[in-house]
Order: sequence, then C-alpha cells, then structure tokens
Amino acid sequence: MLEEMNIDRSEIENLLRRRFFYDQSFSIYGGVNGLYDYGPVGCAIKANILSLWRRHFILEDQMLEIDCSILTPEIVFKASGHIDRFTDFMLKDIQTGECFRADHLIEDHLEKLLEIKDISDEKKTEIKRILPQIGNMNATDLQQLIEQYNIKSPNTNNNLSEPIAFNLMFSTPIGPTGQMKGYLRPETAQGMFVNFKRLLEFNQGRLPFAAAQIGTSFRNEISPRSGLLRVREFAMAEIEYFVDPSDKTHSKFETVADLEIQLYSAINQINGESAQLIRLDDAVRLKLINNETLAYFLGRIYLFLIKIGIDKNRIRFRQHMSNEMSHYACDCWDAECKISYGWIECIGCADRSCYDLAQHIKFSDQRLVAERQLSIPKQIQVGEKRLNCKMIGQLFRKDASIVIEYLQNLSENEARILHEKLQQSDEKITIDNKEFIITKLIFTFETIQKTIQVEEFIPSVIEPTFGIGRIMYTMLEHNFKIRPQDNQRKYFTLPPLIAPYKCAVLPLSSNAAFNPFIKQISDLLTQIGISYRIDSSSNAIGRRYARCDEIAIPFAITIDFDTLSQPHTIVLRELDSLKQIRVKIDEIIFVLQNLSTEKVTWNEISRLYPTFIEQQTKRLENVE
Amino acid sequence: MLEEMNIDRSEIENLLRRRFFYDQSFSIYGGVNGLYDYGPVGCAIKANILSLWRRHFILEDQMLEIDCSILTPEIVFKASGHIDRFTDFMLKDIQTGECFRADHLIEDHLEKLLEIKDISDEKKTEIKRILPQIGNMNATDLQQLIEQYNIKSPNTNNNLSEPIAFNLMFSTPIGPTGQMKGYLRPETAQGMFVNFKRLLEFNQGRLPFAAAQIGTSFRNEISPRSGLLRVREFAMAEIEYFVDPSDKTHSKFETVADLEIQLYSAINQINGESAQLIRLDDAVRLKLINNETLAYFLGRIYLFLIKIGIDKNRIRFRQHMSNEMSHYACDCWDAECKISYGWIECIGCADRSCYDLAQHIKFSDQRLVAERQLSIPKQIQVGEKRLNCKMIGQLFRKDASIVIEYLQNLSENEARILHEKLQQSDEKITIDNKEFIITKLIFTFETIQKTIQVEEFIPSVIEPTFGIGRIMYTMLEHNFKIRPQDNQRKYFTLPPLIAPYKCAVLPLSSNAAFNPFIKQISDLLTQIGISYRIDSSSNAIGRRYARCDEIAIPFAITIDFDTLSQPHTIVLRELDSLKQIRVKIDEIIFVLQNLSTEKVTWNEISRLYPTFIEQQTKRLENVE
Repeated sequence: MLEEMNIDRSEIENLLRRRFFYDQSFSIYGGVNGLYDYGPVGCAIKANILSLWRRHFILEDQMLEIDCSILTPEIVFKASGHIDRFTDFMLKDIQTGECFRADHLIEDHLEKLLEIKDISDEKKTEIKRILPQIGNMNATDLQQLIEQYNIKSPNTNNNLSEPIAFNLMFSTPIGPTGQMKGYLRPETAQGMFVNFKRLLEFNQGRLPFAAAQIGTSFRNEISPRSGLLRVREFAMAEIEYFVDPSDKTHSKFETVADLEIQLYSAINQINGESAQLIRLDDAVRLKLINNETLAYFLGRIYLFLIKIGIDKNRIRFRQHMSNEMSHYACDCWDAECKISYGWIECIGCADRSCYDLAQHIKFSDQRLVAERQLSIPKQIQVGEKRLNCKMIGQLFRKDASIVIEYLQNLSENEARILHEKLQQSDEKITIDNKEFIITKLIFTFETIQKTIQVEEFIPSVIEPTFGIGRIMYTMLEHNFKIRPQDNQRKYFTLPPLIAPYKCAVLPLSSNAAFNPFIKQISDLLTQIGISYRIDSSSNAIGRRYARCDEIAIPFAITIDFDTLSQPHTIVLRELDSLKQIRVKIDEIIFVLQNLSTEKVTWNEISRLYPTFIEQQTKRLENVE
Repeated sequence: MLEEMNIDRSEIENLLRRRFFYDQSFSIYGGVNGLYDYGPVGCAIKANILSLWRRHFILEDQMLEIDCSILTPEIVFKASGHIDRFTDFMLKDIQTGECFRADHLIEDHLEKLLEIKDISDEKKTEIKRILPQIGNMNATDLQQLIEQYNIKSPNTNNNLSEPIAFNLMFSTPIGPTGQMKGYLRPETAQGMFVNFKRLLEFNQGRLPFAAAQIGTSFRNEISPRSGLLRVREFAMAEIEYFVDPSDKTHSKFETVADLEIQLYSAINQINGESAQLIRLDDAVRLKLINNETLAYFLGRIYLFLIKIGIDKNRIRFRQHMSNEMSHYACDCWDAECKISYGWIECIGCADRSCYDLAQHIKFSDQRLVAERQLSIPKQIQVGEKRLNCKMIGQLFRKDASIVIEYLQNLSENEARILHEKLQQSDEKITIDNKEFIITKLIFTFETIQKTIQVEEFIPSVIEPTFGIGRIMYTMLEHNFKIRPQDNQRKYFTLPPLIAPYKCAVLPLSSNAAFNPFIKQISDLLTQIGISYRIDSSSNAIGRRYARCDEIAIPFAITIDFDTLSQPHTIVLRELDSLKQIRVKIDEIIFVLQNLSTEKVTWNEISRLYPTFIEQQTKRLENVE
C-alpha cells in the first residue's frame, strides 16, 4: 500500500490517467479545471460503489430512495441558507484579476514559511497555532493575516484585494423569460426536505424513517485542486434520517455497538491528543457521541468503508469543534481517511436537529411536521369560526362565495378581533373593491376546549453525506500495489464487488481454434450478468495479464491448448496472489458467480481445484 | 391496458401522484414547470430500467460506458452546432410578455379550428396538410401562418411578437471570474465525442466499438407539458457506435435478422400509407434501412422495449423524412410508442455519418481519427523538413531552441515557400522581436515518397438515444390495469426485473407472534439483495394488498397463523392472477430469486407448490 511502500503519488495518477479511470474533461479543448470524465474503468468502479451503497444502506434499512431535480429555484436556497452563507472567501490579484481561495492561499504561504530554516521557534509555534484555524476565519481575520504576513499574489507578487465572499452556487435562469432565478444544487439534501410530506405519507405517517438520494451536485470552486478531491461537479450520496427529537435511540444500534472505532473527539483535538480506539456503545454511554442514532450511522459508515476496500487502519472519525459546527447542529463527525494528501474528509455525519424542516416551514408556509401519539390525551384551547352560510347566501347572492372565502381565511387573531367588534356593531369589509356589511348573525368566533390524542412536532434530521469521488480515490490509493519482482507492474486489488470487470477472457494466442471457446465463455458470462473484458490481441499473454492487472480485473480466464481437449477446462488466475487453478468450463459460472459476489473467497475456491503452475514462471518472465 | 379499457389518463396520473411514483418538483413552493422528482417507487423503477439497459446493451455488446461532465464550455457546443441551431421558435404576448412555443401554439389553434363545425371541407383539408409540417417550419413560414389565421395570445387575445429563435440550453459561467461561458449539456453525446481518442486507445485502436453513457441532460423548454414527455431536466441513455464508414455490416446482425418489426418508412409517410410489418433482413436487403448496423440497433431497441414491458403491438419505427433529418445524417429512425398522447418518440436511432468527429477535429485541431490496415500498401508523397540543428546551435546559441521550434512549427506550405526562397537567397525571420538569418544550409524541405500500410479515416457514428422518462411513462401506461371485480382497485403489472420492489411482506394481523417471522424473512431478503416493503400496519390485509398492488409489487408474502406451526410456511401471492401458493420459509429465497430475476415464470413456479385458496374470497371481500 501507498504509505508503507512509499510510492510517489504521480505513479498512481499516471496509471489512472493512462488507463482512463478518469481524466480531465474537455482536454481536447485545453480542459476545464475541476471537471472530470470517468472512463470505462472508473465509471464501472463508481457504479459498483453506488450499487453497494444502495444495498448496504438503502436495502438494509428500508430507506426511501428518491431522485430530485438538480435545477432549483432560488427560494429553496434562501430557506436553506445557501444564498446567504454558502460562500468561500476569494482574493483577487489587483493587476491581473486572477482569483485565489483566501484560506488556501494563506495556508500555502504559512506552510512555506515553516520550511524556512532561519525562522524563530516562537514564530513557528505561532504559525502552527494559526494554521488549523484559517479554514473557519471571517474576512477581517483573513485580511489581518494577509497584512501581518505581507502576503502577495503568488505568481506576480502583486497586491491582493481584500477577501470577497464568493457564493459557490452556479446560477442559471429557468424558463424563456429569464425571470425565474435558478441554481444548480450544491447538495442533494434539499430535495429530501422539500419532499418530506410526500415521504412521510409514503411511510404511512410513521417516524423514524430515512430518505436517501444519489445524485450529481455542483460547486463553483474558486480554485479546484487535488484531483478528485476538490471538483466543480461530483456524485454524492446522502441520507436524511427523520426522527422524533425526544427519542434518538436506534432499534438496530446493538448490531454496531461492539465495533471499536478510532474517534478523534473535539476534546482530543483541543488537548492536542490523538484519536482513541473506542467501542461505539461506550462512546454513547460516555456522551462522546450525542445519541444512539448518530452512533449507529458512524458504525454503518465504518462497515461500508471497509467493505469497499478502504484500509480500516487509516479511518478515523473526527468530531467538529464547536466553532466549525453550524449553530443549529447538536453534533457532527467526519469520517476521515489517510491518503497521500493527509487526512481527508470522505463522509460527514451530522445531527442537524430540526433546522432544515423549520426553515422550509418558515419560507413555504407548509406544515412539514409529524405527529406523535400522546400517552395521556391533552386538553387544548382552539379557536373556531362559525359562519352562517345560508344567511350569507341570501344576503350576498353571487358574491357569497368570496365572502365565505374571506372569512374562512382570517387568521385566528383577525377572527377574534372581528368577533369582538361585531359584538359592538356591524362591520364593513372590502373585498375586490366591493363592500359588504358583516353582522354577528353571520359570523362568530369562539374558543372551545378540545381533547387531542396526538401532537405535532418538527422532526430532527440526522444526515450522513458521502462524497463518492473522494471515497473512490481513497479506495484506489489504499489498494494500489507494485509487484515486488517488477516495479513496472502496477495493479489495484479491489474487492470483487467493486472491481470494474469481474474477469478477463484471454486466449493464449490468436490461434483460431480458441475462438469457439471465447464465444462460449463470453455468452455464459453475459447470460448471468458478469462483466468481463476479452483481450484477444496478439500481445504476449504476460503483457495482456499486466494490462488486466492495471485495470484491477481480479480474475482472468485463460484459454490454452488443454482447453481444446475433453473435458474442456480453462486456467483461472487471481490478480494479487498470481495463483492459478484449472477449472472445467461447465463450472466457471458457479465459480465466478460466487467469487464476484464475494460469497466465497479465492482461498476457499482455489483449494477445491487443481493448482496450475507449470507455465506460470515462464509467463512471468515473458512480461515485456 | 389503457387503450383497450378506454381509461381516462387522469386515473393513471392520480395514482402516480398519490403513491409518489413522481411528482412536480418544489411544489411546496408552488412548483416549477418541467421539473419532476421521482419518489421511492419511480426512482426504483427508473433504476431498474437503467440496470436492464446496462445489461441489454452495454454488457451484451461490450460497450465502453463513460460518465462525463454536465457542465460544458461553450466551444464544445460551437463545434457541435448547438449554439447556432439548438433553438425553438418562441412567441411573446406583446402586452404581458408571456412566452409560447410557436409550433405548439399554432398547432393548438389549428386543431381547435378543425373541431368547429361550420368550417369548409376545403379549409379542413388545408389545415390537415399543414399540421404535420409545422414542427419543421422556419420563422417566416410560422409568421405567415400567424397572419393568415390571425392567431392571438390564447389567454389575453393580445397580439403576438414575431417568432424569436430561443436557444434551449441553460447557460452558467464556470469559475470565479465569470469569464468562462458554460452550458448544461442538452445531450450526453458530446462527452463521448470529445473522449473519442481515449476510448479508441482503451479499445487498443480497434474499430468498431461503442461508447455508452447514462446521465442527466437539460433543455430550457419554452413551455413544458404532457407530464414526463416534455421536461427541462431528464435522464437519458445514449450509445455512440463508431464504425468504419466503408463497412457498416454488423457481426451480430443475424441475431436480430428474423425479427418482424413495424416500419413506418419515409415513403409510407409520403404516400399516406400505414406502417408495415417487415423482417429486418428484408428491410436491409430492400435498402429501406440504410445499413446492417443501423438495423441491428433497431432490432436490439425493439427487444429492449419488449423486455421492460412495453406492448409490442404499440411500437413502430418511423423513418425521418428528408426535411426533418439533419443534412449530414444518412438515415434516422425513431422508435415510437402509442400511448394516450398519441404516437410519441421514445428513442431515436440515427446514422450521423462522420459529422460530429469532423466538427470537433475542425474546432479542436486534434486528430480524432482511426486507422485502417490497407490490403495493398500505398505510395504517398509527404513533405519532410530537415533542420541542421548542430549548425543552428553554433549560430544562435541560447536562442537556438526558439529557432528550431519556429522552423518545426511551419506548416507544409510555409516550409515549401521558405525552402524555395532559400534557394535564391538567405532569409531574415523575426521571432519575439529578434531577427535571425536562415540559410539553405540550416533548413531544407523535400517531398519524399513513403509506403504506408495503414490509412487514417474519420469514423462514422451510429447513435441510438433513449429518453428514459418517456420510456418509463409509456411502460406504466401499457401496464396499468383495473380489477374487473372492483374498479377502485388499480394496479400495474410490471415485469419482475422492472418492479420497484420485488415483494411485500405482510403479517396477517399485528399479532406479536408474527414478529420473529417478519424479521427472519426480511433478513433473508436483505442478505440476497431482493428489495421488499414490509406493511405491518393495522389495516385489513385486503387493504394492504391493494396498497402493494398500486405500487406494482409483483409478489406478496403473507405470514398467517399456519406460519407459526412446523414446518413454517408462508402464502405467496401473485399480483395479476391473484393466485396464492404455500411455500416453506426455507424455500422462499430460491423461489423469489428465480422469480425476481425472471429465470422462471409464476406459472412455472406455482405448479410446484400447493395452491392456497380457502381465505382468498373472504379477503377480497374485505377490501375497503
């Protein structure tokens, strides 16, 4: 693995580009920063990660998956706070107009300072103290640092503008008039909040339930960098778990309670301690993690990361410090993974309390609430309007309906005031420029006692949110290997469920006698839906193996001269161990189906079949 | 089915909305036209259609699936022609500014005229002749119709503006400076063209091969309408089959050659004939379909539509008339399906010749070409520059490299002219404001003969393009049913592979004794990845069945009192036939896995198990 083997990151990146896992978009036109296209290999890996995600989260917990619009009208992001607060600070080179992300520019500058030898220890300590805070600074603090350290535009040494708040959302007008302001969503979450009522109804009014969404989001990053880590368009997968705030226990918590996980709490961070290995139920008991449901998701996230092949020793959960957490959140943990860029956030998991629904209630005037059964029925006072519709009809004839509508739409307070006035005298009201005289015979308002069995509340939301590109890149780094016997031979050992193609089909040579077997085997694989690549090019078999290894194909079927005779058999080779076994063609479906769905391991299967070794050494030598 | 049963479309639409298959986006804020959110049922159906699409097209034909950026810089759509031509004509109400799509407004007006009784037969014939042409008219022709028929703004009767060409792409600037103009892609195709070189390399330089992409595209429709049929954001799936234009045979054509398909050729349309049932190989032989590869895709499309449950008697392939086809296309067929809106286009399949790659070659100056082996090597003349680099180094010292670069970058023509001049006298050239004297000792240009084994060519592209929303809506309409015994009970009979959930799990009542069995069965289903919904609410079983039927769950497992005793069995019910069988719990995995993957049919399975009838009549009566 990368860390242990001390490999240059460019080795991986070259391979990823050369074999088109993914690459910069539109590069025939010079490319666009922060946009990537996934080639056949990356696209398949991404699809497999998402498919496992669906199974691990959605199917396992019966979540309600939905698929909402990317184009979003402005009001939604006014409600969510994105219009006001989804900004990064930008600095402009005052001569050239080049833009920089303020925190990154200052961090880079200070990090370079640290490397200078003749800087005092005192200064170094100060810089080290400042560095972790820069990401959360406001414009004034950032400007002060720029002045204090005399920071200039890095390429020109020109002066920099003051920090400017730059909203990261892409905007585009919707419709032909250009009047409706729209944005590309910067997260999928809002689609789930605005559909809360429909989802609650689909779930027959019952809480808790989780909505989930997989989709593309967009952020107009000031300066995209670090490959897939900071991009302008990306796949994400999000869960919104709606729960009664008075009960955040989780019925399946016991299934993860015993997991021991690296937790890097806010207290650890303040005290300069490192992360600690803690059992999840201890963490809940010690109130390190706010509640069971949040802890349940941390456990499920941990299991997911391991299942897709991320190294469990390079995962930690870092708690947000109070200054980086939104004011409404009651707890937030990031799943961070260690890669060549350092510890990077791959997944966030926040208890956002009832903030999101409350905001949409405020802006939409809809009742986005759930009901809870009261153990003891409650007496409450409610105002009730009484309209004498018959008399209204007789008095106002064809205008009756607008008068009724007017009276019914009065707020509780307006109705009370009108009622009180009517006790003194009749009242004149104006609707659509017409006047109507209302009397106490027509309208009354009374406060009555009512017994209620249920009460309404705004659900809390616990939100795990996954950046798929980051997870995929981390997974690739953690599984990158180089053969000890030949440092030109690089490969990835992905779990079979994640591997882009499950097997390769390789005739030993271009001898035409092999063709019917290529066809037979590919027909069999197609039938049962196992993805594969045929490489029948004239290259030496060793070279073709190497090519399959590079794109992380875990198993290779070789058709050789023994295949031609009865009983027809093939050689099955495993990528990492290089071990080979001979399997009858009739049995490869059984073998590959079980291997590719991870029902059995290679070790288990390979014990059942004769090992094939004679040609292996020869082949390895053949590698070009 | 809808047509036969003569059902009101609103019946289906109400059900689709009520059970949240899909619904208008952002409706808590009043909604946005042309944007839809897919709820749990619609989202699962869409995912299943796409999963089957992947298997039917990508896996079966070893296509290279890629996943490209939605955000696209302007130059790409300059090259593709979208900037100039991706427009609809719009009319504005000159008082209110309300916008209308010109062709739709005129069509609606003329269709209403047809319904008026006192219009002359002559006039009717004229209108009927005009109607099918309106979609392809230019601004002048549209304006003429508006004047001729005195067409006004429909809601206000105000005058209308002249037709204005409105570009349907959403635009948004990319990056913080606002300098880079970007668009949301209106199709996924361009991503495959701009990646052609990488894909060809991935395929080891060999043609033919197909790229495929599933993704979201955006069109800023002037007036979205007809539910999922005309929307502003939609999923599409596209294939670009790159092929040598000199050989459009297809190695797998024989697998579809015998299919009999309704073809509605351009000639049929001109002659006012109806579509004809023709075998695909006859259609190719008769040159009705331009080539084998195009016909192969028509056959594959037909098989796909049937597999996902579309009625084969309501599919036809309509050929584009010469006036609706792009000038570069050599043939184009739309797969049309008959639904309550009439015959609608679900899939287009065009032979676009080499247009797209040629355009990107022109705009990007990259060689997006393939090579073909020549059967007889060819002699060609090529110009060759010869530079005396040693002498250049001695003469120009530190400036040598810019001189070499300058000379190497000369075009063939420039090099020839320079060479000829140098035969007369030395030449002075200026680079970066410096002058250099070039002599014939330094630079020569000669035309030499070369033998080539391969020649380059621009591949042709055959492009099947699928609108997933339209296909899904069509499939739902074709499978909508109402129980003959109760017209309140509506349901959809989807193929199990497409069904949103494969089975329901229903305890007969809320008796606690059933709980362990609910858990056991749901654990089993989760383990093997079969999607399911539990309905353990207190509603009568009949009502719960009806609810599962509405969301197209093909199979229901009922846990009843017999389940409690040894051997533990459940009742398995099939949605359409209402037939029920008793199955041991141990065997339901086997049964459901085979049913849900369509390896066996319900008829086959139900013969193997005892029929369960006693309670059924009682239950049906129970329906509320």
